[in-house]
Amino acid sequence: MSFEITEDFLADVRLGIESGDETALRKAIDELPEQDVSALLQELEAEEALFCLQLLPLDKASHVLSEVDTDYRLKLIKQFTPQSLATYTDHMDSDDAVDLINQLDVQVGEEVIGWMNNEEKADHIRDLMHYDEDCAGGLMAKELIKANLNWTVDQCIEEIRRQSKKVDKIYSIYVVDNAGKLLGTVSIKKMLLADEEVLVADLYEDKIISVESYRSGVEVAECMKKYDLETIPVINVQGKLLGRITIDDVVDFITEQADQERQLMAGITEDTDEDDSVWILAKSRLPWLFIGIIGGLLGAQFIGVFEDFIQKVTAMAFFIPLITATGGNVGIQSSSMVVQSLARDSAYDGLEWERFLKGFSVSLVNGIAIAGAVFLFNYFLQSDSTLAVVVSVALFSVVLISSFMGTITPLLLHRFGVNPALASGPFITTANDLLGIGIYFLVAYMLYTF
Amino acid sequence: MSFEITEDFLADVRLGIESGDETALRKAIDELPEQDVSALLQELEAEEALFCLQLLPLDKASHVLSEVDTDYRLKLIKQFTPQSLATYTDHMDSDDAVDLINQLDVQVGEEVIGWMNNEEKADHIRDLMHYDEDCAGGLMAKELIKANLNWTVDQCIEEIRRQSKKVDKIYSIYVVDNAGKLLGTVSIKKMLLADEEVLVADLYEDKIISVESYRSGVEVAECMKKYDLETIPVINVQGKLLGRITIDDVVDFITEQADQERQLMAGITEDTDEDDSVWILAKSRLPWLFIGIIGGLLGAQFIGVFEDFIQKVTAMAFFIPLITATGGNVGIQSSSMVVQSLARDSAYDGLEWERFLKGFSVSLVNGIAIAGAVFLFNYFLQSDSTLAVVVSVALFSVVLISSFMGTITPLLLHRFGVNPALASGPFITTANDLLGIGIYFLVAYMLYTF
Repeated sequence: MSFEITEDFLADVRLGIESGDETALRKAIDELPEQDVSALLQELEAEEALFCLQLLPLDKASHVLSEVDTDYRLKLIKQFTPQSLATYTDHMDSDDAVDLINQLDVQVGEEVIGWMNNEEKADHIRDLMHYDEDCAGGLMAKELIKANLNWTVDQCIEEIRRQSKKVDKIYSIYVVDNAGKLLGTVSIKKMLLADEEVLVADLYEDKIISVESYRSGVEVAECMKKYDLETIPVINVQGKLLGRITIDDVVDFITEQADQERQLMAGITEDTDEDDSVWILAKSRLPWLFIGIIGGLLGAQFIGVFEDFIQKVTAMAFFIPLITATGGNVGIQSSSMVVQSLARDSAYDGLEWERFLKGFSVSLVNGIAIAGAVFLFNYFLQSDSTLAVVVSVALFSVVLISSFMGTITPLLLHRFGVNPALASGPFITTANDLLGIGIYFLVAYMLYTF
Repeated sequence: MSFEITEDFLADVRLGIESGDETALRKAIDELPEQDVSALLQELEAEEALFCLQLLPLDKASHVLSEVDTDYRLKLIKQFTPQSLATYTDHMDSDDAVDLINQLDVQVGEEVIGWMNNEEKADHIRDLMHYDEDCAGGLMAKELIKANLNWTVDQCIEEIRRQSKKVDKIYSIYVVDNAGKLLGTVSIKKMLLADEEVLVADLYEDKIISVESYRSGVEVAECMKKYDLETIPVINVQGKLLGRITIDDVVDFITEQADQERQLMAGITEDTDEDDSVWILAKSRLPWLFIGIIGGLLGAQFIGVFEDFIQKVTAMAFFIPLITATGGNVGIQSSSMVVQSLARDSAYDGLEWERFLKGFSVSLVNGIAIAGAVFLFNYFLQSDSTLAVVVSVALFSVVLISSFMGTITPLLLHRFGVNPALASGPFITTANDLLGIGIYFLVAYMLYTF
């Protein structure tokens, strides 16, 4: 299906680099699609990769450099002078060039832009650097094909021919007025079928879905998903056409979001993957483990208050894991449903009370089922019927309160601009552990005392 | 950005339905994009939705019906006779038509296909129904534009004009030989720039990435993501062109996968969303809560064995939540990293030992850090220094073993064809709780006895 880099192929490439056999090496790697060359380079040392890159035509080399993994690319571009980097950014799509330049120190980045020959592209890059990475402006590229309202089909096709030399793929032809305001699109299909003298104004489709540059990446993704778009034009508040976002960048965005969410749910900070060093991997996990540890030590102090009580009713200790596990499970179930709704964008705009009521009903049903089942089990297996009551009352309360906590925490995080998925991880588990222990011992204390 | 259904608009539509004012109603909804009409229908009762649907041109109505949420669509299509459903499937893309027909009873589905006027489409549908939903064959549609190797550009453009009437959007023009074997693509851009008498054979690009019909959805998604494709052709084992998959279907597939994974990690079975009834929501959560409960009760039985011991060293009980929480957190961290690698497809092909060693090193670092910190805390705050040793030794062991469990469980599930994300949820937490308690009491028993 797709090309796999075999050990043999890699050995051949390394041999080619060592022997300096440029012709054979160039032939071998120029045959591969850009993405496969990128994957290949990542298997090599930075100097070896550089050697391969310089064998390729500049246009292909630039795209290869765009595709390389960001961590590895940082190593690679440190080997370049600003001047030689500029020859690559000259040939990149503006959005990819910005990503690369943002990896450099500000001053080096400025130098790269200064050395560029393609003035138009350099302007595009300066433009795009103003936008935040995760908003529509940060996702867009400036390369697109525009047609003026007043052109004929013939003029338009002529212009497309000219403009299309700067653009890799023709996605859509955007129709603008003299002020650059986006009015609609005209399809190639329609132009192929139309008479040459017809005006674009009579041919274009004025219903167009566009996105303002300040919109979040999540909003862009939801919109493109909903309307099955391969590309979406980006406009400013006055409606002027600024650029376009293509679905491949949005797919990458969605995948990154999912990875980030998974890591937050699992209690792993930073963007790590298995290729990182042991030290980075350990460091990314420790903070969350320590949150759990601090919670556990606080819990220990709290249970310590009831030391005499446990000595009298030792069986109290048996059910501690049952209580904490249930609280954790219920909390994560509730929070993940909220996270899912929030990921669908505009949910929770209204109807908050209805949702709370529904969540409450669900936990009521589950609380009764669980508390009931555990009561039956304990009543027949434990000699202490008070304890059976204590455990079930505590379980029931824990289900209700954990469910409430699991619902409210992601909503609050979201309101304060923090990724709500944070609430589905060790954070909510630790809080629920403490709450559960508190409830358990308080219920026990009350029921045994009265 | 995109259209939002306001309460006012909905009220107007309802009023239009009640009063039977077809002209005004048709005008209001025909202005909206198909996806917004679908969203609108979902806010209405099935009879109301049906009334609106019948006002639209058949072509648009068919697309609206394709876009409606599957749960809601089932309610809707039950109102149709097979004959009237056939008029809609006649106008759908073949992949959407198959999705709809698969929702019906087998016999009703057969009747619908039987009533279809578009014989070619009916054949396409019968063809597509053989494929499993989550493989490349199940994701593809049959509508595409083919050009024969031996055509001239002129002939080719003529054919595109003809064929494009059956296809919504022209993605790529696939070049095939006389036997229908896929050879490559030819771009519209190239044809626009070429002379009319040039043969397709001299113009087409023979490097093409395609996918065999038996490949999994995950493989298709990874491939399209890697090569930034908007569309990928599907071939059979002989290389014959069967259909094509578009990126919008793959984006939906990716989103569904992420939702499913999130739900598995959170311990929620079935595909539920917040719109489902309280009963369905409660039912989807209970099985996992019960797994936790059974684990908790087993834990209680196990701790019960040490009743006398706890009576002597009551402080043992204080640290139970600390031990179980740490085991749970470490287990989920490890398993989620494995799940992430598995989601990236081809990971874990080789190098298993290296990965295990790395995971082991990470947990060694974390185990030492955590056990050390807790030891210092307990040593200075607890009067019982043996207990400080017991807790830290147990913690250290729990980190190592939970990390091992968290790594091995998703790998085993994956090998047996079960979604590995299952291992990041209540499943692994419960197992680790039990393991943690076991280790804790065994370590204590040994250290206090000797």
